[in-house]
Amino acid sequence: MILYTFKKGVNVIDRLNQSELREMWEDLGMNLELHDQLLESNSRLFKKTHLWQKKRPAAMKLFDRALHDSHGQRVAEILDYRKGGGKSVGTFCIYVPDEIAMAANVLTIPLCGGSGWSVSYADEMLPRDICPLVRSTFGMALSETCPYKTLKEYPLGETTCDAKKKTWDLFGIPAMEVPQKKNEEDRKLWISEVTTFMKDMEKVSGTEVTVDKLRDSIRKCNRKRVILQQINGFRRLKTPPISGLDALLVSQVALNMDIDNFISAGEELLEELMERADNDVSAFDGDGVRVLFAGTPSPMGYAKVHWAAETSGLQIVADESCTGIRYYRDLVPEDLDTLDEMIEAIADRYFKIDCPCFSPNTERFDNIADVIDEFQAEAVVHNILQFCHGFNIEAGALDKMLIEKDIPSLKIVCDYSEEDGEQIKIRMEAFREIIESKRNR
Amino acid sequence: MILYTFKKGVNVIDRLNQSELREMWEDLGMNLELHDQLLESNSRLFKKTHLWQKKRPAAMKLFDRALHDSHGQRVAEILDYRKGGGKSVGTFCIYVPDEIAMAANVLTIPLCGGSGWSVSYADEMLPRDICPLVRSTFGMALSETCPYKTLKEYPLGETTCDAKKKTWDLFGIPAMEVPQKKNEEDRKLWISEVTTFMKDMEKVSGTEVTVDKLRDSIRKCNRKRVILQQINGFRRLKTPPISGLDALLVSQVALNMDIDNFISAGEELLEELMERADNDVSAFDGDGVRVLFAGTPSPMGYAKVHWAAETSGLQIVADESCTGIRYYRDLVPEDLDTLDEMIEAIADRYFKIDCPCFSPNTERFDNIADVIDEFQAEAVVHNILQFCHGFNIEAGALDKMLIEKDIPSLKIVCDYSEEDGEQIKIRMEAFREIIESKRNR
Repeated sequence: MILYTFKKGVNVIDRLNQSELREMWEDLGMNLELHDQLLESNSRLFKKTHLWQKKRPAAMKLFDRALHDSHGQRVAEILDYRKGGGKSVGTFCIYVPDEIAMAANVLTIPLCGGSGWSVSYADEMLPRDICPLVRSTFGMALSETCPYKTLKEYPLGETTCDAKKKTWDLFGIPAMEVPQKKNEEDRKLWISEVTTFMKDMEKVSGTEVTVDKLRDSIRKCNRKRVILQQINGFRRLKTPPISGLDALLVSQVALNMDIDNFISAGEELLEELMERADNDVSAFDGDGVRVLFAGTPSPMGYAKVHWAAETSGLQIVADESCTGIRYYRDLVPEDLDTLDEMIEAIADRYFKIDCPCFSPNTERFDNIADVIDEFQAEAVVHNILQFCHGFNIEAGALDKMLIEKDIPSLKIVCDYSEEDGEQIKIRMEAFREIIESKRNR
Repeated sequence: MILYTFKKGVNVIDRLNQSELREMWEDLGMNLELHDQLLESNSRLFKKTHLWQKKRPAAMKLFDRALHDSHGQRVAEILDYRKGGGKSVGTFCIYVPDEIAMAANVLTIPLCGGSGWSVSYADEMLPRDICPLVRSTFGMALSETCPYKTLKEYPLGETTCDAKKKTWDLFGIPAMEVPQKKNEEDRKLWISEVTTFMKDMEKVSGTEVTVDKLRDSIRKCNRKRVILQQINGFRRLKTPPISGLDALLVSQVALNMDIDNFISAGEELLEELMERADNDVSAFDGDGVRVLFAGTPSPMGYAKVHWAAETSGLQIVADESCTGIRYYRDLVPEDLDTLDEMIEAIADRYFKIDCPCFSPNTERFDNIADVIDEFQAEAVVHNILQFCHGFNIEAGALDKMLIEKDIPSLKIVCDYSEEDGEQIKIRMEAFREIIESKRNR
C-alpha cells in the first residue's frame, strides 16, 4: 500500500498550513508577491509537463509532494534544524562532497534554479548571455524569492565553468577548485581541495570529522545513490515502469529532500516498480523509441525537453546528466579504516565525474557508449542549456562517436522559457519518425 | 632616418613578389579565392581603422608592413625556416612560455584570429554563440585561408576558457593546463605543466634545453617585453606620441613578427617616440579624454573599438589586455644559474598574468587601479568579445572598484563584425561628453 507520508523519515515536523508558510516566508525576508508568482508559474508548469501522464507509479505522489514542498515544508524543516543549532552551506554542483559535510554535521543545500520565471531578475547583476541555470539561481536570490537565501552559513561554488566561476567572484562566494585535467598532479590538487573542504566544514559546525562519522555518512550517501541506481535500473526493461519525466523528478528532488526521507520514499517507489516489472507494466503507452537524454543538468522546475520528448513518442530510458547518472553512478568504498584513506577515496569518487569541465573528457564518451548499450537506447537527445559552451562544443565531439555507432542524435539548445516548447516538440516528432524509418531500413 | 627595411633583422629573406606569394599559398594547400577575399577584407578594414590618423610616427610603416606581411613574407620566412629543419608549434594564448620553446629551438606561432571575415566558416564545427576569436581562428583553418595551418608540428592550446578548452578537445589539440586559483597547489601544478612543456619542446626539436640556451632566450624575450614597455611608457605623457590604435598594432604584430625583426623595428620606433616626446608632438589632435582600454584581446585584424574610441575624441593611453600590458608587464629574472630555478621563475612569471580564468582575480583589479593612476586615465572602456563569460562577468566586479575610484566606464560587448561600428562610435561620443561634463563639475 502506498501511503501519502514517508515511512521512516527522521526529520518529519508538523506540516505547516498556508498561513504559517506565508508567515515563515515573510520572516525569511522574502518578497511574497513575487514568490506567489514563482510558485504559480512552477505549479502550472508541473501540471503541464508531468500530470498528462496516465500511467505514473502511485508512489510518484511522494516525489510530487517533495517538489511542491521544496519552497515550503522542506524550508520549514531546515529552519527548524537551524533553530536547533544545525549548520548548512549552499551548493551549486554535484562536485561538493556531501559525505564530508554530513560527517561534520553540516547540511548541504543544492541551490541550482530551474525556473524560467526568475531568469530575468538576474539582469541586475549578470549578463543575459550566460546559462539560464546560473541566471535562474541568482534571479531568485535577487528577487528575494529564494527561501534558502538566509538558511545557510554561506554558499560554496566550484570552478566547473566560466559563468559560474566568475559569478562566484562577483558575489564574493568562495569556491572549490575542480581541476581541468585528470593527471596525477590534478588529483593531488583535488585531494587538497577536498581536505580543505573538510576543515572548512569542521569550522562551520565546530564538529570534528571522525572515522566513524565519515563511515556512516559514506554509507548513507551510498545508500541514496544505490536507490537511485535501482530506480533507474528498471528503465533498462523493454517496458520501463517509470517514465523519463518521473525518473528525472526523482533525481531532482533527491537533491533537495532530507536524505532519510528520500531513502524512505525511494524504497516505496522501488517496491512498486518491482511489482510493475513483474507484471510488465510500462509507464508509457506502446513501444515508442528508446532514447538517452544527454547534456546539461535539468534542475528542479525544468523538464521541458523531457516533456517535449515523451509527449512525442520518445521514451527517455536514461539520463546522462548531473540530474541523472552523473549524480549517482559512482559509490565510495565503505571498508576503509583511516580518515586519510577515506578522504582520498571520496576525492577519487568525485574525480570520476565526467563533466565537460575536464579536457579531454573521453571517459564521458565511454560512459555514454556503455549506457546506450546497457539501456538499449536507439538514439540520443542532447539537451544543452543555452550558452553552456562546455556541453555545447562537446556535443559535436560526442556526435562523432555516435555516428560511428550508427546512433542518431538530436541537439536541442534552449533556455528555460516555455515559448519554444511546441517547436521543440515538432523537432522531437520528426526525430522519432527518422528513427522509426531507420528501423525499417 | 626611418628606413623601410629592418635594421638588424636576422631572418631577412628575399621579398616574394605577388606571383611567388600565390604560388606559396597554393603549395600550402590554401583556397586562393577565399584567401583573396580575406586579404581584401583585412586590407580595407586597416585603411578604415588606421589610415585616417594624420599624426602617426613614421616608423609605424614598419608595423603596417609587418601586418600586411603576416600572411605573406612572414609565412615565407617560416617556410624557409622549416625547410631548413626548423620546428614550430601553433599557440592561442600568452600563457605558453615562449622562452622555453625558443631555448629548445622551437618557434611559437600565435594563431588567434582577429578577422570578422572568417567567423562564419567556423559554423561547420563550432556553435555560433561562442567568442569570435575562437570562431575566427578556426574559420580560417576550415576555409583553408590560414597559411599557418601546415606550418607547425602541432597546435598547442590551454585551458583558459570553456570555449577554447572544448574546442581543443573537439579538434584533438593538446592543451596546457592553466590552473584556476593561485594557491601553492596550483603553482605546483603549473610548474609541472611548464616542465612537461619543456620536455615536449625538446622532443619536437630533438634539442636539449640547457642553462645557457634558456638564459639567452629569457634575455631575448625580456628584451622584447622591455621594448613594448618603453613604447607604451610614452603613452603616460600628456601629449602621447603614439595613439592607442598604433600601440595596439605594435602589440599585435609583436606576436607574429620574427623576434629579432620586432626588436629592431621597436628600437626604431622608440627613437622616434623619444624625439617626439622631446618636442611634445602628440599623435592626437587636441587634448581629448584619456581612457584605459580593458578586457578581451584584440588579435591582429581587429581594432574596431580602438577605432571607434579614437575617432570620437577619446585617447586610449593604456591597453589592459592580452594584446597590451598583460603580454609584456612581467619579466623573468635573468640572473639564475640552474635549469630548475629558471623553469620555476618562468612558471612564476606566467602565473602572475591576471586573466579572468583565475578565481578570484583581484590582482587584476589592483593592476588596473595602478595603471589608471600611472597613465592618468580618466575613464575605462571595457571591450568584451561577445560570449566571453569570463571578462563579461568580471567587468561587473571591476565596475564596483571603478565606481569607488570615481572612474566612469563604458562596456562594449561586440564581435568582429563591421556593422555595429557606427553605433559604437555614438556610444563613445556620448561617453566622451559625459566625462567632459564631469570635468566641469
